[in-house]
Amino acid sequence: MRVAILGASGYTGLELLRIVLRHPRLEPVVVTSEQRAGQPVGEAFPQLRGLAELRFEALDPEKIVGRVDAAFSCLHAGTAARAVAVLRKAGLPVVDLSADFRFSDPAIYAAWYGDHQAPEWFGQAVYGIPELHGAELRGASFVAGAGCHATAALLPLAPFLRADLVGPGPVIVDSKTGVSGAGRTLEDRYLFAELDENVQAYQVAAHRHAPEIEQEASLAAGRPVAVTLVPQLLPVIRGIAASVYLRPSAPLTTEDAQALLAEAYRDEPFVRVLPPGQPPSLAAVRGSNFCDVSAFVDERHGTLIALSTLDNLGKGASGQMVQCLNVMMGFDEREGLLEAPLVP
Amino acid sequence: MRVAILGASGYTGLELLRIVLRHPRLEPVVVTSEQRAGQPVGEAFPQLRGLAELRFEALDPEKIVGRVDAAFSCLHAGTAARAVAVLRKAGLPVVDLSADFRFSDPAIYAAWYGDHQAPEWFGQAVYGIPELHGAELRGASFVAGAGCHATAALLPLAPFLRADLVGPGPVIVDSKTGVSGAGRTLEDRYLFAELDENVQAYQVAAHRHAPEIEQEASLAAGRPVAVTLVPQLLPVIRGIAASVYLRPSAPLTTEDAQALLAEAYRDEPFVRVLPPGQPPSLAAVRGSNFCDVSAFVDERHGTLIALSTLDNLGKGASGQMVQCLNVMMGFDEREGLLEAPLVP
Amino acid sequence: MRVAILGASGYTGLELLRIVLRHPRLEPVVVTSEQRAGQPVGEAFPQLRGLAELRFEALDPEKIVGRVDAAFSCLHAGTAARAVAVLRKAGLPVVDLSADFRFSDPAIYAAWYGDHQAPEWFGQAVYGIPELHGAELRGASFVAGAGCHATAALLPLAPFLRADLVGPGPVIVDSKTGVSGAGRTLEDRYLFAELDENVQAYQVAAHRHAPEIEQEASLAAGRPVAVTLVPQLLPVIRGIAASVYLRPSAPLTTEDAQALLAEAYRDEPFVRVLPPGQPPSLAAVRGSNFCDVSAFVDERHGTLIALSTLDNLGKGASGQMVQCLNVMMGFDEREGLLEAPLVP
Amino acid sequence: MRVAILGASGYTGLELLRIVLRHPRLEPVVVTSEQRAGQPVGEAFPQLRGLAELRFEALDPEKIVGRVDAAFSCLHAGTAARAVAVLRKAGLPVVDLSADFRFSDPAIYAAWYGDHQAPEWFGQAVYGIPELHGAELRGASFVAGAGCHATAALLPLAPFLRADLVGPGPVIVDSKTGVSGAGRTLEDRYLFAELDENVQAYQVAAHRHAPEIEQEASLAAGRPVAVTLVPQLLPVIRGIAASVYLRPSAPLTTEDAQALLAEAYRDEPFVRVLPPGQPPSLAAVRGSNFCDVSAFVDERHGTLIALSTLDNLGKGASGQMVQCLNVMMGFDEREGLLEAPLVP
Repeated sequence: MRVAILGASGYTGLELLRIVLRHPRLEPVVVTSEQRAGQPVGEAFPQLRGLAELRFEALDPEKIVGRVDAAFSCLHAGTAARAVAVLRKAGLPVVDLSADFRFSDPAIYAAWYGDHQAPEWFGQAVYGIPELHGAELRGASFVAGAGCHATAALLPLAPFLRADLVGPGPVIVDSKTGVSGAGRTLEDRYLFAELDENVQAYQVAAHRHAPEIEQEASLAAGRPVAVTLVPQLLPVIRGIAASVYLRPSAPLTTEDAQALLAEAYRDEPFVRVLPPGQPPSLAAVRGSNFCDVSAFVDERHGTLIALSTLDNLGKGASGQMVQCLNVMMGFDEREGLLEAPLVP
Repeated sequence: MRVAILGASGYTGLELLRIVLRHPRLEPVVVTSEQRAGQPVGEAFPQLRGLAELRFEALDPEKIVGRVDAAFSCLHAGTAARAVAVLRKAGLPVVDLSADFRFSDPAIYAAWYGDHQAPEWFGQAVYGIPELHGAELRGASFVAGAGCHATAALLPLAPFLRADLVGPGPVIVDSKTGVSGAGRTLEDRYLFAELDENVQAYQVAAHRHAPEIEQEASLAAGRPVAVTLVPQLLPVIRGIAASVYLRPSAPLTTEDAQALLAEAYRDEPFVRVLPPGQPPSLAAVRGSNFCDVSAFVDERHGTLIALSTLDNLGKGASGQMVQCLNVMMGFDEREGLLEAPLVP
Repeated sequence: MRVAILGASGYTGLELLRIVLRHPRLEPVVVTSEQRAGQPVGEAFPQLRGLAELRFEALDPEKIVGRVDAAFSCLHAGTAARAVAVLRKAGLPVVDLSADFRFSDPAIYAAWYGDHQAPEWFGQAVYGIPELHGAELRGASFVAGAGCHATAALLPLAPFLRADLVGPGPVIVDSKTGVSGAGRTLEDRYLFAELDENVQAYQVAAHRHAPEIEQEASLAAGRPVAVTLVPQLLPVIRGIAASVYLRPSAPLTTEDAQALLAEAYRDEPFVRVLPPGQPPSLAAVRGSNFCDVSAFVDERHGTLIALSTLDNLGKGASGQMVQCLNVMMGFDEREGLLEAPLVP
Repeated sequence: MRVAILGASGYTGLELLRIVLRHPRLEPVVVTSEQRAGQPVGEAFPQLRGLAELRFEALDPEKIVGRVDAAFSCLHAGTAARAVAVLRKAGLPVVDLSADFRFSDPAIYAAWYGDHQAPEWFGQAVYGIPELHGAELRGASFVAGAGCHATAALLPLAPFLRADLVGPGPVIVDSKTGVSGAGRTLEDRYLFAELDENVQAYQVAAHRHAPEIEQEASLAAGRPVAVTLVPQLLPVIRGIAASVYLRPSAPLTTEDAQALLAEAYRDEPFVRVLPPGQPPSLAAVRGSNFCDVSAFVDERHGTLIALSTLDNLGKGASGQMVQCLNVMMGFDEREGLLEAPLVP
């Protein structure tokens, strides 16, 4: 199956290429990059020397149609909408990583992202977390890849919402992220000398993944769920470690909480429920499509603490996009994605 | 003023020595270390070559009495109690960093730390956060240095408790720490290859600083306050970044919250209230005695988010111990402690 | 093909397992570990949850014979010799990573490592760098995996030795290494708080890979070659970046030097000669079996500078061991090893 | 003594401010910054909140004259020359960190830096390494602060040159540097996600500190000395670790080499000669004005290996500038500079 990667020279695009290259059923045929157009992939990015004969090309969605059987887009919001509209109109299956097609309520999109660039396609995509939307994904041809903070928060949280175990009051998500989530953005705060040995919260209770988490959390709960999201930037290249705090609606033990997670993800190959008492570690998912989760109940005060770790470029972005395509196409969900994490 | 540092070869002991060496009124005269007894300081620790003529000696509290005017102890709980009892009995002013004298309720100590090794001195020390216990510290001769997570949590939290602005339900503290808080402990998880590029929660809702925070939080509130503490180990040498989450008892804006912090710490040289909207960064306090704080209210859901950063070896341990001694002795609180943080 | 990994719970053993799991022709059947005997692999190492049904067993070479078709050993020198002797006696193909079988001169082994534990097998193995010993490796059944510093030094150096372009005087190798080369050793200097933001030379001109480099360099040159090796420990998990300095025996330009490298490695899939003027980067080989090389000549003074980077657990250890097995068995040399490096 | 810092918002300028703030004889009165002009120092850089009442101002050398007693310049080459010319013409003592006044031969300056912007002042400054130019510095009023790689290479090398112990052939300097030497430059390679877990040589045998080292090495030797300099960029914020390799002109032991260093730096407070066999570590000089050195002779092949570590912002830049001013003014050389390094 021939695929295109739009926006392939950013971190999520390169990660897609890394995965697609080892995927037994996918062949990368088109990779686009405005900055690198015309350059061979291995010249622009030395890690890929000898691994791909491809050359970056400028983005021209019309010219992609006919050359590939499916497309991944890692373009920014806005640009993505315009390009995806062309591909979808031509009938191409698309997995898009931007926020452009994640929402069902246009007002929420408008409030957080502004005018939509392809309103005719708004609300048409399936939200791309296979563990939550597996049934809809099967046979789908349009998927909105989920946000990294959103995936990290929703996987440990959703089972409690579905079981109606979440009490009133906002759910709190303290989400620690590696810096590759910001891409190759040239700002002071992403410089090694500024970020190493540093930690800082950002977009406190104002991050655009909050409404995304709320949409999906509310869907899982069958009622509106409020989420206070506080992202924290860490001196780490890859990974998100999310701590979800909530008041259970009924008394719960750590064992209850763990049992619920274990049941929810019994048949899911990429969500690993750790043994009771073992918090997930970021290292154990590095470079992989796994999301590790475990839950604790504060014995003294009853607070439920659900923890997760994932690789923001893997399960938090590109890995999950490939997982979605596998499900869409009826492939084995695991194909190309079962590599062991890179540890140490 | 001649001082002793007991347990001087650990990270907190060496940091005390670093500060004492530049303090205009303090002279380090005795430094103890079991492992390094007999070695010149600059031979055991190359960074101190040419800076101190001292030699480590084995711990013998009886022999310290008479040679110094005050003592800092960085010994572990238990060992600390026994040594401090000797020094206190001899009338020496002591600032102790162990948990042995932080608590007022023996049952809580027993539950978290076991049998006390010097029960006659239990409950006699002032809790060593000058911004919260300044009046008691002046003229005191026995101080229990506060825990690092406790200091990081209490400074942004206490003003809201004092103002009776904290609603029901446990206060949540997500406290991210650098690894020097664990000292030079030889365990796999503290190895560079295991910790770099990693993050992991530990002692989830089971850390011994939780009852310490609760004791002081309850004191500030005038009523029992419950705290769920989740520490997280980061790939950082120094520093704690604490996120405190709570439901206010009355509607509050970010501006209200900031104004309250600014008022509370108006005359405190070491708690810096940042401008509204600016989260504290760990780098900005590196190597210093500062605690930077700021507060946010989630506009959509009302959650109060109070953030702090400090250097766990500075304001979180040794720096604050010297600050306490300055207050005890009637020195200018800032002496020896106003160095600019090491940035970058 | 069923394989055993002896010493499978250390970093090189786990890396072998990671590679073998994705290798289309290899199946891991036996994994040994003294410390982890009895534990399921995924319980001992969370990164492997869901990826392998194996259980660690205690080392008992007699019991391995008959269950596998080949064995990798990551045991320490001495222990390795004893175990390998048993396996070899039984006719099993073995790739051993210890230094026990790397040398041809028993006096050199004795001087650097002491008494040999299986002298009857000494000198019987092929030295395991396929780019230098490819012909001997084909069909071989006993291979001594090369040292990480040795591989990093020899690959950029050997072509110049073979072309008789190295002048008199020792070759200087300044070899910067990540800390995983030391394994999970519990020593102060490997702690995050000691190693992060730090760099330090070690075993200066006294490292045991020096005689190994000299043996192979002399073989390539057809005359004795002296090497001064200075390893440097970096705050990096994986990787070696070697700088090789030498006086050419005849005037040389950067272009000449690059042309020589390009010619030498034209048909080698794992040694990538970078374009002239582009120094290799450690990141570009992370997690892979590649060794990137390039050469520079100091225009003003004639010094030849040959640079290399590799992953010390990949091409510097476990990856190269699998590459050797591929060649020994007549498989495609690249099988299981062509994954793209993990960047960023 | 009132001082100005020109170019005060870069890393070296801020480090100067950090040191000057604690210096008992210096008062910062003017700090310039084009980007930050008008901003209070503590607002622009949170680490300085509460520590300085200063406000950045735009660079206008004419307006500085009369307000200060001496000036430090951290401006870039070219800009520095023009500003320094104004200050020097007005008779102000100046310590300049650019390369504009480091050279004695205009042809060398022109070849590496281009046209000089203040030729009338070229060659007028004393080269700012007090251990090498102490006599000239006393009473001087114009000093060219030395380059960071140059200081790191010259301090371990110069004693051997002076003793005529360096044989023919270029001296090799493999100089590993932290990233703060590049300042706050916004380029991909300085991003955390690109640099962490990475190492890469740069400007191989083409770095502008090479001619600077050669000038000073030749002066020390009394004959032309060739230097091949290969800088390497490390995932470290601060520090340079230099390895100097050379062929001695006569047989030498490690003890001889160490004795020579010890004798050369016996009375120098900032060059610490470590015990034989102990390589310097970067951590031991962090945040300080120390340069730690030690030497090894390869017993087998005779190569001399002289090692050094320093903080590139301390002894490699701003610390050394203050040390120069202390010497120029007849202050105790150590004033403001004897802080213990920040370890861990």
